[in-house]
Amino acid sequence: MPPILASLAELKSFLQKAGTERTYVVTSTELAGILGWAIEELEVPQDRVILIPDQEKAKQWSEIETLLKAFREKDIDRSCAVLALGGGSVGDPAGFAASIYLRGVPYVQVPTTLLSQVDSAHGGKTGINFAGYKNQVGSNTHPIAIVLEPRFLSSLPEARITDGLGEIIKAGLISDPSILKALSRMERSALDFPLLIRKTVAVKRWYVKKDPEETGVRQMLNFGHTVGHAIEAKHHITHGTAVIIGMLAELKATVAMGYTKPEVHERLEALLAHLAIVPDTTLTPDTDAMQKDKKMHGGQISLPVVLKEGKSKVIRMPLTELTNRI
Amino acid sequence: MPPILASLAELKSFLQKAGTERTYVVTSTELAGILGWAIEELEVPQDRVILIPDQEKAKQWSEIETLLKAFREKDIDRSCAVLALGGGSVGDPAGFAASIYLRGVPYVQVPTTLLSQVDSAHGGKTGINFAGYKNQVGSNTHPIAIVLEPRFLSSLPEARITDGLGEIIKAGLISDPSILKALSRMERSALDFPLLIRKTVAVKRWYVKKDPEETGVRQMLNFGHTVGHAIEAKHHITHGTAVIIGMLAELKATVAMGYTKPEVHERLEALLAHLAIVPDTTLTPDTDAMQKDKKMHGGQISLPVVLKEGKSKVIRMPLTELTNRI
Repeated sequence: MPPILASLAELKSFLQKAGTERTYVVTSTELAGILGWAIEELEVPQDRVILIPDQEKAKQWSEIETLLKAFREKDIDRSCAVLALGGGSVGDPAGFAASIYLRGVPYVQVPTTLLSQVDSAHGGKTGINFAGYKNQVGSNTHPIAIVLEPRFLSSLPEARITDGLGEIIKAGLISDPSILKALSRMERSALDFPLLIRKTVAVKRWYVKKDPEETGVRQMLNFGHTVGHAIEAKHHITHGTAVIIGMLAELKATVAMGYTKPEVHERLEALLAHLAIVPDTTLTPDTDAMQKDKKMHGGQISLPVVLKEGKSKVIRMPLTELTNRI
Repeated sequence: MPPILASLAELKSFLQKAGTERTYVVTSTELAGILGWAIEELEVPQDRVILIPDQEKAKQWSEIETLLKAFREKDIDRSCAVLALGGGSVGDPAGFAASIYLRGVPYVQVPTTLLSQVDSAHGGKTGINFAGYKNQVGSNTHPIAIVLEPRFLSSLPEARITDGLGEIIKAGLISDPSILKALSRMERSALDFPLLIRKTVAVKRWYVKKDPEETGVRQMLNFGHTVGHAIEAKHHITHGTAVIIGMLAELKATVAMGYTKPEVHERLEALLAHLAIVPDTTLTPDTDAMQKDKKMHGGQISLPVVLKEGKSKVIRMPLTELTNRI
């Protein structure tokens, strides 16, 4: 598991110790402006900053080709480090390109959103969308380090905070109820990010370490994502918000199947209300996208099921068991 | 390390035991005709045969996109197996596409040339050419099995046999002199393929197992390849033949540097003559391609050096040390 670094200053000394000869930053056009201060602090010159499109536009096959061409033109080799500076829509494609260039050059995740700091920057998954499906192409390649710099969070809009809260709540539901308790005691305007990030990242890393190949327990991290991804694909809402709606829908279904205690769903609704999160539960998933879910295996789905807060397991069932109940 | 299977029949029972739900074959347009008997024996229906261009044309970025689209259209998922049926120009891109589709679907190397049976099918390297450079993009992803079916070798033209002999001789020079002795006792018209393949594959697997990340001894497998690749890039000759010329050139250089005993170069020339191999040593490498070699690391190259037959080590030196002597 890659080390977690607490600041840009720590990253600089980490790269020095690692003997990195040149450091490159991959970030989006928009972020390059907003995060100029970070690039400056890292002392990366402008000609080593590589820009990719904003948001999901970067996660396309043709954009990876463009990015790889930039790696080539800049003579990046294995003595270099590529920093992915941004949210998942930077980290996913930049990590993917780094993982396949020269069969892998070292890269560092520098997540700048709450969502990416607690989720996508960890676990080594990289990827792009393909033929209309999310994260259909990619690799499992860990970065050499992950930087959780708190200063990036101070300027995030509320909607981005909500995105991150989705994954934080998920970690609480599947594994660590103390996260839910902590959230219920915090005001939305005074969230204790360091505490929430520490606990959520600990949950994620436990699963990744326990099951690096994602053939067993790690699939629990997909709780809320089977429906969530299929809602995201259809309605183009953000990932975290889609996962929140996905968790509600999956809980409702597994309550109906008799796996989940009904109170779990009710308590989640109450927690969301407390956090001023108002998910649009009228949104329905794209069932075709669910058919193509990577967790599908011969018509059956491995569905992560929360039995009660902190207790969960993966249950295999025909996909229709789920789709009939949402 | 993936298991080695000795025939198509063994492959069929292996896939059955592995619980593979559907089997797909990726092969080239030309090979699909020549190897129809193998596809038939494997009982893979025509709509599960995916054709890619012949030779190096398949190893292009745009062709990987086409291949991934075929995977998508055919609903390939992780319960399936993708068989790469052909030489390295099938195995490299098919393995790469399989390794990134859904972040990895199981694939099997079914090498059909002597060169791929002793070399490219082993070690887990997949890849394509990019921006004019060989194998510039790819992954390190082992297949779930490697099939060494002797019947594929019976119809190979002599030039393809020479290609394979290059890598067989390399294994002898860097690690196992008994391969060289065996070759010196065989007539070109009566090569003992099973023996040569067994010994050569044992050498390759030893290095891969010892150094999976290719940060140390495994680099010895690149003997002859630093110059070989750069000749291949410029003169468009086949890989094995380029490696033979590369080995001669690198030996000549390291003899001049004082690392290699002069007899090693002379004995290699004699062995090549015995095997009726007449390499065109007037071909010079593309030195720009050598600059971009993946083994380059901050201006220095990790050069695999044969000290004497079976004794070798990797030596770091400025690239000019080598280029000045070839």
